[in-house]
This record gives sequence, structure tokens and C-alpha cells, in this order.
Amino acid sequence: MTKLYLISTGPGDLDYLPSIAKKALNECDDIVGYGLYIDLLNELASKAQQHNLPLGQETERARLALNLSVQGKTTGLISSGDIGIYAMATLVFELLEHEAKPEWQSIEIEVIPGISALQALASKVGAPLAHDFCTISLSDLLTPWETIEKRIHAAGQGDFVISFYNPVSRKRRWQLEKAKQILLQYKPKNTPVIIGRNLTRDTENIQITTLAELDIEQVDMLTLVMVGNQETRIIKQGKHIYTPRGYRGKQ
Amino acid sequence: MTKLYLISTGPGDLDYLPSIAKKALNECDDIVGYGLYIDLLNELASKAQQHNLPLGQETERARLALNLSVQGKTTGLISSGDIGIYAMATLVFELLEHEAKPEWQSIEIEVIPGISALQALASKVGAPLAHDFCTISLSDLLTPWETIEKRIHAAGQGDFVISFYNPVSRKRRWQLEKAKQILLQYKPKNTPVIIGRNLTRDTENIQITTLAELDIEQVDMLTLVMVGNQETRIIKQGKHIYTPRGYRGKQ
Repeated sequence: MTKLYLISTGPGDLDYLPSIAKKALNECDDIVGYGLYIDLLNELASKAQQHNLPLGQETERARLALNLSVQGKTTGLISSGDIGIYAMATLVFELLEHEAKPEWQSIEIEVIPGISALQALASKVGAPLAHDFCTISLSDLLTPWETIEKRIHAAGQGDFVISFYNPVSRKRRWQLEKAKQILLQYKPKNTPVIIGRNLTRDTENIQITTLAELDIEQVDMLTLVMVGNQETRIIKQGKHIYTPRGYRGKQ
Repeated sequence: MTKLYLISTGPGDLDYLPSIAKKALNECDDIVGYGLYIDLLNELASKAQQHNLPLGQETERARLALNLSVQGKTTGLISSGDIGIYAMATLVFELLEHEAKPEWQSIEIEVIPGISALQALASKVGAPLAHDFCTISLSDLLTPWETIEKRIHAAGQGDFVISFYNPVSRKRRWQLEKAKQILLQYKPKNTPVIIGRNLTRDTENIQITTLAELDIEQVDMLTLVMVGNQETRIIKQGKHIYTPRGYRGKQ
């Protein structure tokens, strides 16, 4: 039985890594990932043979990890954040189903969850995710824009707290502005918006604004954008943001 | 400056705790929480003075933690899962805003995120959260049922992967059946459903079924219920479940 770990490496700072992730990394003969994220692991990845495949080669990374595993090597495929949330884990299962090489079928797969960007950002500002929330990726590279737009409308109608993953890319900038305009049909102009970049790293930058004042120029590829629900509150001069659950009404 | 840590203790198994949580617990003079979750911390909580307040006394726990902090004690308020997701963190901020005792204003609050139940469950079965998802609490103790029902409709319309927190309680059992009936208006009968109980503990139990066959009798207070989107797939005879992101169409 060969083993393939799908390992979440969290938001950046290694203090956010649970022990299960460290133990799995320690067992790996080979580690496959994007170079920057392998580098961030420092000595946690130093024992293993490292396979650094550039951005854009996601499917190749997943295929390589499966192939290394069948060679008898305990392999770790890594992804920042939570590998199960908009990340590499799904690609491995997609290959397992559709390429279905007979030798892959004996691989035992273990997924190691991690702290996703939305949790890191929420923890830095307070408790904006304390009530019903959703995540929407604004990348229309793999998902038709109509589907994404339908979800933004639904999130507005349902008054969810919304985390936008992949809000912009270098070539793709209009989607976040469009999302903002859609949400303004459902949410007040002063709905709190949190913009988080390089979370938990030295270069971390967090800005608090409102839906009406959200400026797309503040947002880049490494940013998570979180929009509150109708109850989300900014307190202590913008030091904290939280979404009430309603305990107060019950006192 | 006195310090109050709001510490996530994760799904159960202490191997899911990141180092930041262990470091924060280690700094605490006093720990406030529900007894079961303090007990699960074992030696991680043994150095501190423990304050065990029963279920139902959530506001009292938050208030006690604030009051211990102003006494100069480094205090940890703990919550299972992620303390920012349907948990205790929001209560502290609610008190800070509305009770606003002057002495509380000097407390420095640090929130420590953790692995939430939806991530633990997802990791155990594959990658069901790989595309847009939402969470909905079915508890109408603090939220009017009309709001919850509106969100279930929105989640169905938007075809989100849905995680139901607090699906039932001892006294409250019809909400999950109602949610199922609403979702059947939007999602196919064979939509995968994952039922996870006591995640990461010795008594962990995970069942895979479909939306039409979801039996409310399988669900209790300690259960998370996750419903796939229209693309979510069960593979390898039910060993894995994943939601594609669409890489395959781009090859």
C-alpha cells in the first residue's frame, strides 16, 4: 500500500500548521508543490526530494504526485490554505476518476486539512464568520461567469457573509467590480468589507472599508475580500469586526 | 495591557491543533470553557486555573473571560472547532459593544483560528468543498426560521455545497427534514450527502447517502450534514467524494 498525503500548509506562518501536517511532511520521501509554498515550509520539507512545478501546471503536479506514490515513495502534494478549499485535492480525485490508471487504484490517500485564508482573515479582525457564510471564487477560468453571477445573486438574497477567493488576477479585473454592483442590490452601502493580503506573513495588510467604497485597485491576486451580512458590525474604531449570532436578543 | 485569547480547539483530536493554539494555551493563567472541551485538552490545559461553565451559559462564559482578563490574568476562552465559526468569539465582541464596561476596553484580544467541523469532514472523505460552498445553522433558537429558510432557498438556487451546522437538537428535529424538502426543489435526488459525527475522535462515524435518502434519524446534535452541489461525485465505491473545479474541461 503506497501513501499519498494531500497536505494543507495554511495561510503562511508555520505556527498555523497543525501537528498532523508536520507529521505527514516528516513521513514524505517526496514533496510536490509550487516552489514558493515548498520554500515557506523551510526545514519541514528539507528531508524530502522536492518537485517544484510552476503555476499553471496544477494537473501535472497532481499526476506527478500519483505517479511518485505508485513508485513506492510516500508522497506529499502540498497546497497553501486548506488543500480541500479551492485547491489541489480535487484535482487528484478528478484524475483518479477520469484517468484511472490501474496502478493508481492501490494508493491510499489521506487529506490533511488546514487553516484557510477566510479563517486567518476572520481571526485577525474579530468574528465576521460567526453566522451563515459562503465562499465564491471570482475566477471564470474554469467556471462560466453565468454560474458565478448566479451565486453572487444567491449570496445577496440569502444575506450570507461572503468571502471572495481569487477576486482579481493580472488579466482579470472586472469581476470584482461586477460582484460589488450586484451585492449593492441586496446589501446596504455601509456593509463592512474586509480586504486581507499576505495573511499571517510579515507583509500582512488588512484594510476595512464598506461595500460602496470598495476600490478594486486595493485588491490583487493575493487578496481575500470578505463582505459582511446586514448585521455585521465594526466596533472599537475599526479594531474589530463581528457578526452577531443573536444572543443579545435572548438575554 | 491584559490579554484575552479566544482559542479554537479544533474538531477533537489534539493533532489538529496548530502551534499558535498550543502556545496560547501555554500562556494562559485561566481557561474558561465547557468542561468536555477543557477535558479534551488534557495536559495542554492542566497548568491553568480551569473554569467549567455548562452548556447554555455561553454569555456567562464570555463575561467571565473578560472579567478574568481585567484582573490581570492571561485568559483563554476556548471553543471546539473554529471559535470564529458559530462559536464563542462573537459573544465576546457582542459584550464588548453592548455592555462596554470601561475596564474591558484595555483588553487586547487575540483570536486563534482552528480546523472547523466542515474541514475535518471534508478531509475524511476527499474534497467536497473544492468549489463554492456555504454553511447554514439550522438552530432557530437565536435566528428566526424565516431567515434560515430564506438562506436554504438561496443556497439551493446558487447550487452551493452546503454544510448544515446544528442540524438537530434533542427538542428540535423537524428543521433538517424541512431543509431536505426545500433542497429537493433545486438539487437532484441523488445529490451526495455526507453525515459526520464525532469527527477525528475514536467514535468517529461517517456515512454517505443521497439527498432523497437522507434519514433524519441518522443525525444527532454532534453531527455535521454536508450536501453536495450538482457536480459533486462519489468515486471508488463510496470511498471518496469530491466536487470538481472544472480543470478537466480545460485539458
